Amino acid sequence: MTKPAFNLTWHALSAHREALGEQHLNEIFAADPARAARMQLEACGVFLDYSKNRVTDETLTLLFGLAREAGLAEHTTAMFEGARINTTEARSVLHTALRRPAGASLGVEGHDVMADVVAVRERIRRFSEQVRVGSWLGYTGRPITDVVNIGIGGSDLGPLMVCEALQAFAHPGLRMHFVSNVDGVQIDDVLKKVNPQTTLFIVASKTFTTQETLTNAHTARSWLIGHAGSDAAVARHFVAVSTNAEAVSAFGIDTDNMFGFWDWVGGRYSLWSAIGLPIVLQIGADAFDRLLAGAHAMDEHFRTAPLEQNLPVIMALLGIWNIDFLDAPTQVIAPYHQRLHRLPAYLQQLDMESNGKSVKLDGSPVRCHTSPVIWGEPGINGQHAYFQMLHQGTRFAPIDFIGVLDHPAHLDHHHRVAFANMVAQAEALMRGKSAPEVEAEMRAAGLAEERIRALIPHRVFPGNRPSNMLLLERLDPFGLGALIALYEHRTFVQGVVWGVNSFDQWGVELGKQLAARVLEDLGATSDSNPHDASTAALIERYRQHARAGDPAR
Amino acid sequence: MTKPAFNLTWHALSAHREALGEQHLNEIFAADPARAARMQLEACGVFLDYSKNRVTDETLTLLFGLAREAGLAEHTTAMFEGARINTTEARSVLHTALRRPAGASLGVEGHDVMADVVAVRERIRRFSEQVRVGSWLGYTGRPITDVVNIGIGGSDLGPLMVCEALQAFAHPGLRMHFVSNVDGVQIDDVLKKVNPQTTLFIVASKTFTTQETLTNAHTARSWLIGHAGSDAAVARHFVAVSTNAEAVSAFGIDTDNMFGFWDWVGGRYSLWSAIGLPIVLQIGADAFDRLLAGAHAMDEHFRTAPLEQNLPVIMALLGIWNIDFLDAPTQVIAPYHQRLHRLPAYLQQLDMESNGKSVKLDGSPVRCHTSPVIWGEPGINGQHAYFQMLHQGTRFAPIDFIGVLDHPAHLDHHHRVAFANMVAQAEALMRGKSAPEVEAEMRAAGLAEERIRALIPHRVFPGNRPSNMLLLERLDPFGLGALIALYEHRTFVQGVVWGVNSFDQWGVELGKQLAARVLEDLGATSDSNPHDASTAALIERYRQHARAGDPAR
Repeated sequence: MTKPAFNLTWHALSAHREALGEQHLNEIFAADPARAARMQLEACGVFLDYSKNRVTDETLTLLFGLAREAGLAEHTTAMFEGARINTTEARSVLHTALRRPAGASLGVEGHDVMADVVAVRERIRRFSEQVRVGSWLGYTGRPITDVVNIGIGGSDLGPLMVCEALQAFAHPGLRMHFVSNVDGVQIDDVLKKVNPQTTLFIVASKTFTTQETLTNAHTARSWLIGHAGSDAAVARHFVAVSTNAEAVSAFGIDTDNMFGFWDWVGGRYSLWSAIGLPIVLQIGADAFDRLLAGAHAMDEHFRTAPLEQNLPVIMALLGIWNIDFLDAPTQVIAPYHQRLHRLPAYLQQLDMESNGKSVKLDGSPVRCHTSPVIWGEPGINGQHAYFQMLHQGTRFAPIDFIGVLDHPAHLDHHHRVAFANMVAQAEALMRGKSAPEVEAEMRAAGLAEERIRALIPHRVFPGNRPSNMLLLERLDPFGLGALIALYEHRTFVQGVVWGVNSFDQWGVELGKQLAARVLEDLGATSDSNPHDASTAALIERYRQHARAGDPAR
Repeated sequence: MTKPAFNLTWHALSAHREALGEQHLNEIFAADPARAARMQLEACGVFLDYSKNRVTDETLTLLFGLAREAGLAEHTTAMFEGARINTTEARSVLHTALRRPAGASLGVEGHDVMADVVAVRERIRRFSEQVRVGSWLGYTGRPITDVVNIGIGGSDLGPLMVCEALQAFAHPGLRMHFVSNVDGVQIDDVLKKVNPQTTLFIVASKTFTTQETLTNAHTARSWLIGHAGSDAAVARHFVAVSTNAEAVSAFGIDTDNMFGFWDWVGGRYSLWSAIGLPIVLQIGADAFDRLLAGAHAMDEHFRTAPLEQNLPVIMALLGIWNIDFLDAPTQVIAPYHQRLHRLPAYLQQLDMESNGKSVKLDGSPVRCHTSPVIWGEPGINGQHAYFQMLHQGTRFAPIDFIGVLDHPAHLDHHHRVAFANMVAQAEALMRGKSAPEVEAEMRAAGLAEERIRALIPHRVFPGNRPSNMLLLERLDPFGLGALIALYEHRTFVQGVVWGVNSFDQWGVELGKQLAARVLEDLGATSDSNPHDASTAALIERYRQHARAGDPAR
C-alpha cells in the first residue's frame, strides 16, 4: 500500500521549493493579504491559523497530492478498522477505539473490542468513584488523600501532562504525585510527604516488569508494609495498570484492582486507556469521558474532513514541508498557558518515538528526514531564554504557538499580556526588522552616528520565520482531548507520508539489553569487564567509588 | 583581536573531517583502546570522559589550534579583568567576580568591584539569616514560612534550577515558590497555598519594569494588602532584587531591602549575584559560599589550565566539531539525577541566548552555524521517550550524559540501576548493533526465517553516535557551582571561536516592542489594527471573544 516518498510529487515539491527561493513572508502577505482568511481552520474547539508558513496555494496543492499518493485515506481507514498496521509487531493500532462512545461495537478479526474497552472503562469508573467519595479505605479505615502514580514513559508523561493541564477540574481532596525516575529521589521525596494510611499507589506497567517502575514500586511496598506491619495492607493501597495477572498478584495486588489494556495500545498513545487512571481519579469519570469525547470528535474530523479542511493533515504536511524542503531539524512547541507546561515533553515522546526512524515499512532506508527534535518550554518564559536564537540564530526552527482564549475574569489583565506577547512573537518572527528600520529608530533615539553604524547589523532581524497559531476556545477536558488527538494524527500522517512504522520502538531495545549487562558488571567482583575501553573505565570508576565508600553517606 | 573562523585551521578541519569520513567509533576504539584513558579529565570534582566523540588526536590538535588563533587566551584575560568585551552594550562581563572570595580586590577602570560585590553579599547574608532563624517577622509578628520568587528568564531559571538541585540542603521550614509566567496561573496557585502573614515575596527585576514580573508582583501586592488591610505590610513582605531604587520605593519596598547588581552581570549569568537570593534563603549563606567556591574553582581551572587539560575548552571545541563539521543542529543534555531536571532548561537559556547569533562582533555575518538547540529531559525518562530518535532517527544529536557518583546508602539499588542505564546508553549509542548481530539474536530466539528477514532492518542500530560523560563526585553546592561554571565557560569559548558577542541579546527586543503595540490593540475599540492580515485577524478574534464574554466565566 505504501508509496515511496520519492515520487513525482516529491520532486515537484523540490522544484517548487527552488522556485520559491528565499521569498519573504512579508512579500507573500503583501501580495495576497487574503491568505490569512483562507489559511485558517477550526474544528472541535481548536482554531488554527497557518498562514504564517512559507507556503503558497501551490505548495499546499502539491502537499495534499503527496498525502493522497501515499495512500493516506487507505492507511487511515486501516488504522480505524483495526488492521495490523504495526507490521513489525503484527499488531492493530486502536487508541482511537479507546475514545469511541459506548454503544457502538467495533469488530476486529471477529472480536468486539468495544466490549472490552467499555468493560474496563466501567470498572475504572466504579473504582475511581469509591476513591473520590471516600469510601475506598486504607488499612486503618481512613479514606485516600494522596495518589502516587508509578510509571515511566507513556505510563507517566500522558497522565502527568493531562493532570497538570486540567488542575482547574481537580478533586480538591486528592493530591496527585508522579514517580518515574528510578534514581530514588522522587519516590524518597513522595514517601516523606504522604501518610501510609491514606495513600494509594498505582503501578503502571503493562508487563509488570519495567525495571524502573518495579524498582520504585517495591520501595513503596516495603515502606507501606513497614508502617502497616503486615503484607495485607498492600491490597488496600496498591492497584495495577497491567495485563500480567500473575506478577500483579504475586506483588500482593488484588487482581480485581488490576486494570488492563491491549497490545493494540502503544505506550505513547495510552492515556485514553487504563493508563489514564490518575486522570480519572483527579477529574472524575464524567470529565474523563469529556476528554475522550474531545479526542473522538477530532478522530471523526480527521477521518471524514477533506484533506484541504483537515487540521491534522494540514499540520502534518506543513511539518513535512518545513522538515524536508526547508530543512528544519527541530520543531518548537510553545504553549502560552502555564498548565500546558508538560505538553512539549509529551509531544516529544509522541513524535520522536513514533517517527524517529530511518527505515520504511518494507525495510528499505528512508531517503529524507523524519522526526525532528520536538522541544520547548512555556512561550512567555522562552521569550526571556531561547527565543533569542529563534530570532537571530543560524538555525531555522518552526514554532507552534498554543494559546487559550478563555480565562478567569480576575486574571483578565494577566491573560491579555500573555496573549499579546504570543501574537507579537509570531508577528516579530515573521516580519523581522530591516536595517533601514533599525537605523531610523536609533536615529530617532538620538544615538551617535558611529554607534548607529556599529549596531545596525546586531539589531537587524531577518524575519521569515514560520509559525502555526493554535487557539483553544478553553482549556477543558474536551478541548484538551481534541488538541492531543490533533497531534497524534499529525504524527500518523507524517509517518504515512514517510512510509515508516509509527507504532513500534525497536530503538529502545539495545539500551535495555546493555543496561542489564552493565548492571551486573557494576556489582561484579571479578575483573570481567567485556566492554569498550571507555565503558569499562566508567564501570571501574563506579566500582572504585563503591569500594571507597563516601564520608557523606 | 578576533580572528575570523574561516582561517587556515578551519579549512584544515574541513579537510580532516572529509578524510575521517564515516569512520565508526567502534573501529577507532578497536585501533586505539588507550584513547579512553587519554581522553578523560577531572577538575574541581567534575570528571569528563570525552573519548566517545568522533575525534582523533589530530582533530583535537586542530581544534586547539582554532581556539589559539581565535585569541582565546586574550579574550579570557579580557573577560576576567573586566574589559568591556560586551561591545554592543559597551559593558564589562564580570560574573566571575561574583564568585571570587572576599579579600582580593579587583580594580576595573579605577574602581574596586569586589568591594561592591562583598558589600551586597554581606547584606544578603544578614537578611537571609534573619529569615532563616525566624527573626524576620511578618505584619502579625510571625516568622516566614514561604518564599515566592517573582522573576522571569535569568531571574527565574537559575535560582529555580539550583534550588531544585540542592533540595537536600534546604532549610526544613521554608518552602520556595517560583512565579515567572505572566498568564496568572502560577501566581494564582501560589496565593491559594500560602499564608499572607508568613510569606515573603522577592521581586527580581533589574530595571523593576519587566512587564511579566511587575504584573505578577502587583497582583501579589494587592493580595497582601487585601489581607493585611494596610499598605504598611508591603515593606515586611516584599524585598527587591533590582537597581531601580525609585520604582522599588514607590512599590512600597524599603530600599534597605533592595539588593542590587551591576550592568556587568547578564541575566543568564546572574544566579551568583543578588538574583541568587532564593538560593541563599533555601540553603543558607555558608552553603551559597560553597556554590560560589565551586564556580570560582572552575574559573581558576579555566583561566590557568593548558588548553589540552582544560574542561570547558575541550567541551566547547567538541561542540564546535559536532555543530560545524559533523552538522549537528542540536545538543542533548541528559541528567541522570532527578534533582537536575531543570538543568536542560537552564542551559538552553545560557547557550541559546548567548550564542544564538548570526553576526560577529565586527558586524559581519557569521559563516558557520552557532548555537544549536539545547534540549533534554532527565535521561532515564528520555530512554522511554525521545531516545528512540537518538538511536534510529535520521538526525544526529550529540549528548551530554550527566551522572552523580555519590548517593544516600538506602538508595543504593536505585542509584545502581540508574547509573547502569546511563553508561549503557552511551555504550549503545556508540556501538550500535549490526545486521549480523540482530540476525544471530533472532535466530537464537527461534524466530521464523521470513520474520527474521523482515525485521532485521528495523532492529539494526547504526551506532557511531557521540556523547560526553560527565560525572560529579556528589551533587552538593561546590560540585554544582563547578558544573554550571563549566557550561558558562564552554559557551564563552564557543562565542570566542565564532567571533560573536555572547553577552548581548538584541533578539529579544523586537518581540517586546510589538507586544506593547498588540496589547494596546487588543483593548482598542477603534478599527485600528495596523498589522499583517494574519496578526490582525488574531487580534480581532481576541476582541470578539472578549466582547462575547464566556459562559464559563
